[in-house]
Amino acid sequence: MPHADDLYAFLSTTRSIRRISDKPVDNDTLQRILQAAVWAPSGGNRQPWRMIAVRDRDTKQRLSEMYSTEWAKYVDFNMKKLEGMPKEVVDQAAAGLAVGTRLAAGLADIPVVVLFVHDPSALYVTDGGFGRTPVVGGASLYPAVQNLLLAARAEGLGGVLTTLLSSREADVRELIGFPADWGLYAMVPLGHPVGNHGPLRRAPLEEMVKFDRWS
Amino acid sequence: MPHADDLYAFLSTTRSIRRISDKPVDNDTLQRILQAAVWAPSGGNRQPWRMIAVRDRDTKQRLSEMYSTEWAKYVDFNMKKLEGMPKEVVDQAAAGLAVGTRLAAGLADIPVVVLFVHDPSALYVTDGGFGRTPVVGGASLYPAVQNLLLAARAEGLGGVLTTLLSSREADVRELIGFPADWGLYAMVPLGHPVGNHGPLRRAPLEEMVKFDRWS
Repeated sequence: MPHADDLYAFLSTTRSIRRISDKPVDNDTLQRILQAAVWAPSGGNRQPWRMIAVRDRDTKQRLSEMYSTEWAKYVDFNMKKLEGMPKEVVDQAAAGLAVGTRLAAGLADIPVVVLFVHDPSALYVTDGGFGRTPVVGGASLYPAVQNLLLAARAEGLGGVLTTLLSSREADVRELIGFPADWGLYAMVPLGHPVGNHGPLRRAPLEEMVKFDRWS
Repeated sequence: MPHADDLYAFLSTTRSIRRISDKPVDNDTLQRILQAAVWAPSGGNRQPWRMIAVRDRDTKQRLSEMYSTEWAKYVDFNMKKLEGMPKEVVDQAAAGLAVGTRLAAGLADIPVVVLFVHDPSALYVTDGGFGRTPVVGGASLYPAVQNLLLAARAEGLGGVLTTLLSSREADVRELIGFPADWGLYAMVPLGHPVGNHGPLRRAPLEEMVKFDRWS
């Protein structure tokens, strides 16, 4: 068995990769990455989710159009929140969001776009009725996406967990043909990273963890 | 950099561990496992979550009582669904659920119980208004839990992602003191596994993935 440090080498360098080349991903590599997702846990081991690995260019082009529309709304939402802020803050945010705009526009050139769909009837929701949006259903769904992203990193590839396309679920369903009672919970563009990617930027551990009590 | 196979060795053997000994977890190991969680991605890198690592016995005892009550309801829910099924199916399900009952009852003896809490205001929900429970908020929350479980595995420890305690959020908030507008989205008991644990049981890859279209 490898050492824990081998795992940490991957976990500590798995970034969200949005600049992805059109260099193909070979089938064996793709299969290993998809298998890694399947190893993830889920409530009662029901695995109430499936992946659709989209490589067909026309289908990716349609996803690109839908995703671009939603991304543009997200950019507006974020930029509006920055109104009145110093120019350098606004410029930096705009530059960051522009990477996403290019990702959306170029989705058809990315070798594989993985769609994650789920069966809502298999989820046991314990945070409903609190007067806010529940999240607990995601416990059976997003560990698989994280496994996939870690595997991509280990294979020298990269991707990013996106959820904006979920608001276009009905259109994606029509395009892909997944069941009427299933939902779309993630889209991961996958391929070889372009350029250099810096280190992870995360809050320090002391800020993220408390012991025994909140304060 | 280690090889992808080193990652797969861990991913393919990370099981949900519910039989956990009272052997202490040393502080350095715990810190490494918590750090692994912090490396996870989140929407806009906002990291809208925190961990509370509970080691205080009285606090764990209170969590045990709350979790046991919710677990008993979950057992009832599952066993009712099996009414009229063959005895061997019912017995097998009951035996599986009994492991969870013992986990719940013995929570105070488990060295660390990690609570995950989140700030709902930082989530950008794209699957609301579909007439079913949204899940997309979990995209920024559960990758961290999966990282923590993978790190535990790599350190020779084990744990399990549970969500039942979320229905007792108000009581847990009072016990732990996390903010009124934050939610409780997971509890992970963590420690050294007891006994042998078999291989992962997952659906075959062919069943979990489709290419380009659903059918």
